[in-house]
Amino acid sequence: MRILGIDPGTRYFGYGVIERLATGRVRYIECGVLEPPRGAELAERLAEIARSLGEVIAELAPTVVAVEGVFHGINPRSALQLGHSRGVALAAAGAASLLVHEYAPATVKKAVAGNGAATKHQVQTMVRTLCGLKRAPKLDASDALAVAICHAFAARNLSAIAARVVRR
Amino acid sequence: MRILGIDPGTRYFGYGVIERLATGRVRYIECGVLEPPRGAELAERLAEIARSLGEVIAELAPTVVAVEGVFHGINPRSALQLGHSRGVALAAAGAASLLVHEYAPATVKKAVAGNGAATKHQVQTMVRTLCGLKRAPKLDASDALAVAICHAFAARNLSAIAARVVRR
Repeated sequence: MRILGIDPGTRYFGYGVIERLATGRVRYIECGVLEPPRGAELAERLAEIARSLGEVIAELAPTVVAVEGVFHGINPRSALQLGHSRGVALAAAGAASLLVHEYAPATVKKAVAGNGAATKHQVQTMVRTLCGLKRAPKLDASDALAVAICHAFAARNLSAIAARVVRR
Repeated sequence: MRILGIDPGTRYFGYGVIERLATGRVRYIECGVLEPPRGAELAERLAEIARSLGEVIAELAPTVVAVEGVFHGINPRSALQLGHSRGVALAAAGAASLLVHEYAPATVKKAVAGNGAATKHQVQTMVRTLCGLKRAPKLDASDALAVAICHAFAARNLSAIAARVVRR
């Protein structure tokens, strides 16, 4: 199983691809942050994200996608902005007939760092260790890898971590 | 100038294309409602919208896109859902290098029906009249035509109706 984790955003869009090995461990494949031109209109930035993410999917051929659920307490303006880049990401996954699973932020932190209230830095450090990387990936790429790792662990033990396909 | 108006949604996605004539009047070209399969996952529905809207743009060759701004008082969950389909629409516009203008709902109603507090039915009736249609279009298609007409009138008299390109 090859998992594409995504951390959507219209300025920084993180992605990370891992494989779940039969041993239950994960193997790092690639990660990165898409950064559409800053001065560009929103429509242009979203088109750039759609194009680049399509290339990532075509090249790295994930078999499933994982994304963080939206946290409570987000304001409507931020939810709309997040929705824009998230919609483009979901459409790219759908175009490749990939199922998308979503996980609550606390579930991702618990799966990766053993603690649902772990800091971003703790998650980043654990992602680096689990992926066997010499240097920590950028924060958005690390967050994308974290949700991919969460899905790998959830797939190993579905009863322990609630996974659900994004339906609405 | 050929204007594509859109009324995004993940279940019903309205679009409407008109031309602004030199006389200042509008000429109806086409409208419709994209309805991705109900039972499909969100990612699949968004991919279907992206594909269909891309076809509409390729076939009808609009030169500009108009969309309603998001109204105040929307809740975060609804804003996220709207953002998903809106993001896909903006990406399709951006991929075709089309500028996207957005208008407040009250501005659209005022432009089309002469009253910022017009009912949906009043807007639908005026859209039908302005487009010279024998029957009223479906509500989502009518709303899409309404924002396209609003842009046509705004382009005629930019000082009267504030237009702004979607930047954030």
